[in-house]
Amino acid sequence: MSAESVSIVLVGTTHSGNIGATARAMANMGLSRLRLVCPRAEIDDEARARASGADALLDSASVHDSLAEAVSDAVFVLGTSARRRESPWRVMGPNEAAGALREASGPEGRSVAVVFGRESSGLSNRELDVCDGLVSIPVAESFPSINLAAAVALIAYEVRTVWATGEETARPNENQFAATVSEREYFFSHLEQVLEQVDFSRATGREKLMRKIRHLYMKAQPNSEELAILRGILTNIESKLRK
Amino acid sequence: MSAESVSIVLVGTTHSGNIGATARAMANMGLSRLRLVCPRAEIDDEARARASGADALLDSASVHDSLAEAVSDAVFVLGTSARRRESPWRVMGPNEAAGALREASGPEGRSVAVVFGRESSGLSNRELDVCDGLVSIPVAESFPSINLAAAVALIAYEVRTVWATGEETARPNENQFAATVSEREYFFSHLEQVLEQVDFSRATGREKLMRKIRHLYMKAQPNSEELAILRGILTNIESKLRK
Repeated sequence: MSAESVSIVLVGTTHSGNIGATARAMANMGLSRLRLVCPRAEIDDEARARASGADALLDSASVHDSLAEAVSDAVFVLGTSARRRESPWRVMGPNEAAGALREASGPEGRSVAVVFGRESSGLSNRELDVCDGLVSIPVAESFPSINLAAAVALIAYEVRTVWATGEETARPNENQFAATVSEREYFFSHLEQVLEQVDFSRATGREKLMRKIRHLYMKAQPNSEELAILRGILTNIESKLRK
Repeated sequence: MSAESVSIVLVGTTHSGNIGATARAMANMGLSRLRLVCPRAEIDDEARARASGADALLDSASVHDSLAEAVSDAVFVLGTSARRRESPWRVMGPNEAAGALREASGPEGRSVAVVFGRESSGLSNRELDVCDGLVSIPVAESFPSINLAAAVALIAYEVRTVWATGEETARPNENQFAATVSEREYFFSHLEQVLEQVDFSRATGREKLMRKIRHLYMKAQPNSEELAILRGILTNIESKLRK
């Protein structure tokens, strides 16, 4: 089950750099189906530069005369929109949208699509009509104008995240060689001796001080190697003090 | 409680367009603190064009000579990195990272930061040393190279999402007086001196050793009081060694 069933559709894009940056953002997240509806920019040098190597995606992009044609094979289509007020469409956040896309695509990998409108004016109502629902990226009211390719990057990221979860991310245990209780207790008593030798524990009170240090140690959860370093430091300090 | 406590830090950026697009992506998500470390591009026409109106953010961006200086006021710093394999740093996904930033910032809105490296080569190990953990954006293995501003957009989006949800996780912040980057960097350099004095750092190699110790420190996340204890210990050891 892969996120490849998700197409990204750009409608009426005017900046070629945005087409290139979209290709790059898609490739980053494992998406490969780019569809262009009535593009108003060429796939030029600027697009290639911003694609930064995702040329295959640019070269395989399909071009269409209408949104309906571009998504004709899809079983579920989401349009992106800034509007929230009394929308007749179901409006989702990016994460919820990714979940809905995944569910609609199903284990069979049915085609689904996310549609991004013009840089200046977004999608028309006629185009929104083609959509099953809307995705709205939560932006600051003071500065809502999000770059087209940045919007694609956010949605593609959520798609990848949602598709990836559930499979088990068996990451190795980072604290693999945790120190045993006896190792650490030995360290604490050694440390206490050294602190005594350098007249440190007197001021605070030994017990209270050691409790604070233990707390710090527990937060760090040193593994055996790290504990060996700490013990080595103590040993060296002691031998220097003896001289 | 607002996400404004989150700074975006760009290190060694070479394309002015990326600085502009970063400003726009930040403004979209309600972030306003942009910090530039040794930028290799000017804020030129291309930057202004890509900022698409987010000029205030470009104009108020601060410029720094080093990452440590840029984030000196921060209590928690995440670096972005593609690397995943056996990293000594704690590696988070964007959503988890946003949660960690929010928690570290706390209801007081303490300064926290996310750092983005050079377009070509990312962050150096020395720069990663300053970070408490890493954020890794999950990308397709076949095409991992993500645009800088797109990466900022994804992180800013997750920050906004996490900050917007949950209203308040008003559990008392256990790390109430988190140490700032400048406090801990001072501690590391002091510790390094003391380890030198007790002949400890020679065997392992100073840089490798200090990196392991930094990792342990980042796991512990000492607060100001705990850091004061650690500093006091160093001072006492030093004064004893002098005798």
